[in-house]
Amino acid sequence: MALPSFQLWLALLLLTAACASAVHPRKLARLGGLKRLAANESSSDLPPEYEIHYYGQALDHFNYKPESYATFQQRYILNYKYWGGANSSSPIFVYTGEEKDVTYDVEGFILDLAARFKGLLLYIEHRYYGESMPFGSQNLAFQNSSTLGYLSSEQALADYAQVIVDVKKNLSAENCPAIAVGASYGGMLASWFRIKYPHIVIGALASSSPILYFDDITPQDGFDVVVTKDFKETSESCYNTIKQSWSEIDRVAAEPNGLTTLSNLFNTCSPLNSSQELKDYLGMMYEDAAQYDNPPYYPVQNTCRGIDGAPERTDILGRIVAALNSLNSWGSCQDILSYELSNQSAWDWQTCTEIVMPIGRGNETMFEAEPFDIENYTKECVDVFRVMPRPHWITTEFGGHDIKTVLGNFASNIIFSNGLRDPYSIGGVLEDISDSVVAVYTEQGAHCLDMELPTPDDPEWLVAQRDKEIKIISAWISEYHA
Amino acid sequence: MALPSFQLWLALLLLTAACASAVHPRKLARLGGLKRLAANESSSDLPPEYEIHYYGQALDHFNYKPESYATFQQRYILNYKYWGGANSSSPIFVYTGEEKDVTYDVEGFILDLAARFKGLLLYIEHRYYGESMPFGSQNLAFQNSSTLGYLSSEQALADYAQVIVDVKKNLSAENCPAIAVGASYGGMLASWFRIKYPHIVIGALASSSPILYFDDITPQDGFDVVVTKDFKETSESCYNTIKQSWSEIDRVAAEPNGLTTLSNLFNTCSPLNSSQELKDYLGMMYEDAAQYDNPPYYPVQNTCRGIDGAPERTDILGRIVAALNSLNSWGSCQDILSYELSNQSAWDWQTCTEIVMPIGRGNETMFEAEPFDIENYTKECVDVFRVMPRPHWITTEFGGHDIKTVLGNFASNIIFSNGLRDPYSIGGVLEDISDSVVAVYTEQGAHCLDMELPTPDDPEWLVAQRDKEIKIISAWISEYHA
Repeated sequence: MALPSFQLWLALLLLTAACASAVHPRKLARLGGLKRLAANESSSDLPPEYEIHYYGQALDHFNYKPESYATFQQRYILNYKYWGGANSSSPIFVYTGEEKDVTYDVEGFILDLAARFKGLLLYIEHRYYGESMPFGSQNLAFQNSSTLGYLSSEQALADYAQVIVDVKKNLSAENCPAIAVGASYGGMLASWFRIKYPHIVIGALASSSPILYFDDITPQDGFDVVVTKDFKETSESCYNTIKQSWSEIDRVAAEPNGLTTLSNLFNTCSPLNSSQELKDYLGMMYEDAAQYDNPPYYPVQNTCRGIDGAPERTDILGRIVAALNSLNSWGSCQDILSYELSNQSAWDWQTCTEIVMPIGRGNETMFEAEPFDIENYTKECVDVFRVMPRPHWITTEFGGHDIKTVLGNFASNIIFSNGLRDPYSIGGVLEDISDSVVAVYTEQGAHCLDMELPTPDDPEWLVAQRDKEIKIISAWISEYHA
Repeated sequence: MALPSFQLWLALLLLTAACASAVHPRKLARLGGLKRLAANESSSDLPPEYEIHYYGQALDHFNYKPESYATFQQRYILNYKYWGGANSSSPIFVYTGEEKDVTYDVEGFILDLAARFKGLLLYIEHRYYGESMPFGSQNLAFQNSSTLGYLSSEQALADYAQVIVDVKKNLSAENCPAIAVGASYGGMLASWFRIKYPHIVIGALASSSPILYFDDITPQDGFDVVVTKDFKETSESCYNTIKQSWSEIDRVAAEPNGLTTLSNLFNTCSPLNSSQELKDYLGMMYEDAAQYDNPPYYPVQNTCRGIDGAPERTDILGRIVAALNSLNSWGSCQDILSYELSNQSAWDWQTCTEIVMPIGRGNETMFEAEPFDIENYTKECVDVFRVMPRPHWITTEFGGHDIKTVLGNFASNIIFSNGLRDPYSIGGVLEDISDSVVAVYTEQGAHCLDMELPTPDDPEWLVAQRDKEIKIISAWISEYHA
């Protein structure tokens, strides 16, 4: 039987609803290439049951300067197909949009939830993504730190609060329980929303949300420790090949015309400027494979099949090339992406302000060590955006330290779901915190898998994970109506 | 035995620690006169155990515009006198400052709590009050809506979070449980802080905090219904006299030279411009008396003693004058205060943005009806501050509707204390919400009485109220250390 290729995996990655552009720290799993392609797609061809609406959202909820009263058109989407209606007090599933065009989020597990519980679907786009652009256009919104300044997770949460309250009011659905559902960064927002706005949603399903990957709650090298584990468990020789490849790349690069040799060997679309460029590219590919190491494509296995499956005498770099060749779906050459921060990326802005995830590579991984360096990180942010990161702010605002005690005594009705092959799971909540703040994870499966629309081919453990989530959500709704 | 006079009551009101300038809607219980005097006082003569510190606070926590990074010197005060020290994991009592100079808050029940629990005392001044002035001075901070714009309760809560985290870190007191304590608006902040920052404080004591007097959760006329009840229960004839006095004032004012007659009768410092001016002044006096109808002075009783105790044939206005005469402690004449909004009042700014308490007078009170009028309210705010109130924001941000369900399922460790003679108690939490979110109130006693420093003369019911609070807080601390 022919095995699915990396091309297929990447194509799938692009098209999946929940997590195509999931949380990614800088230089790690940026998914830049995918995003670039996604930007060319049209969002106008949503199925007709999706109604697009716009809410005149306040630019700044937390101060009262005159300019804060400016509004922008925040996009949200309603789907009534399954809804039992306000009179039946049927639930509202609120998708807390993450760092992308919300129209890419409309299909997924949330549809299944709506069908089961006769729920209304409400997808809210995150400010500064998709069409929800302050100042009227991306060009104007991304001008400088003064216009980008209104992009923060607290503002996004307040946006969600306003839209939910408004939608409920418009539909006379004040008695309908709302449940936040989010994936990756959007899952962080869903859980934070439940924590900060418990009067607006009765619960939250937060898939693959590394809310503990801040302020050194999670060890800095945790992400790549998991990536390494994924590869090592899949194939020890694959892991060894990758581990040895870095010095081999440097060795070749140091030869006369070494970069040309490498450019030719790896068939790069433009000549390499440094060996680092290539290493960054490869590192990202391995990290992405681990992050999305989901059935049916299992990209880590596929990568390793390329590496291990090369003819017996193939040398280290030849094996890496063999793995990469199967990847070459976007063109006839390897388009080495730039990992520089872009002042046109809203996500880069977010990582330069609040979302400071101190992810560094330690010595325990298959990568070259590259410790997290807050000074350099800060310098880059200042250079590109003229903004200083606030690396301790997220834990001050949302907590994270001693989370078992804090949420155990305070929170209720949150599902933190994870797949342990996801490197971000290391910063997720993997232990039950209380009866109703629970961790639902799978050993297999990686980033946001549970948020995909169920299919008949889903493995049993994935079906079991979703069933568990459904059962918990069902209890929340019953309790609400009790 | 000579009864204490209104002069004494007002003098006491000015000097009491917790609530001298408590929550006051516009035109109701503004305490403007008291504030004016307080502003002349010096705060430099704190006892030596109070250490004054300053924290370089971010101007705006929720957006990342360049100007948000400006800092101001936020004043906070530490008192180690009772503290068991970081090694003993002794608690930290955090006074969440309200709308005044924090040095007026340092003495009160919180001292007693510190002594009992070996607590560190941390008093944090609210931004835009006292010395905690953004832009370096009140003149600069109060320039216009752009400079006042950073004054909001969410910013204040984030300020408290930053200061507490910083103080704990500096003292290596990360393991010391912090407890928020606040009075009136400061009590709202204490309870909201526990709701929004449960990772930073393990509990909150919120005294006389009408967190439900927003967005019509509480009937608009509730405040003056309680004022009326206080007077009526004290003396039916007193109540009747006051009730009849409004038309009597208008009748006299309509006579030839009527305003002069009234000015002379009431011995006003400057001639009255309208009968409304006098009615506003008197209304405020009755409302203040009810708000602070606390032992040992019981100002409602005193007012009524003035009214009822006038010689038998004294007419209605003569009786009101008799009550007022005992009040004349600030000068030889009645200084009719202006109830216009002042663009130099930070509290007026707050009422014009977030703190929109829809308090209106209905027909069920001893006052003339004066329904809350959001249009007129808005117009005044636009005229004075060029700012639009957001009357529904507080409930969107902090909740309030269906509070039993919401906090019952979510919150823990909050004491809402009230005295039912306080007209603000009508917007307070007066029912236990859960085992640990509890209402502790007294039938007698009014605004913030429990926050005063205990004295040997305290009535039994007040002692019992504080004992109950102590017991609950003790349980929080024990549970934390368990």
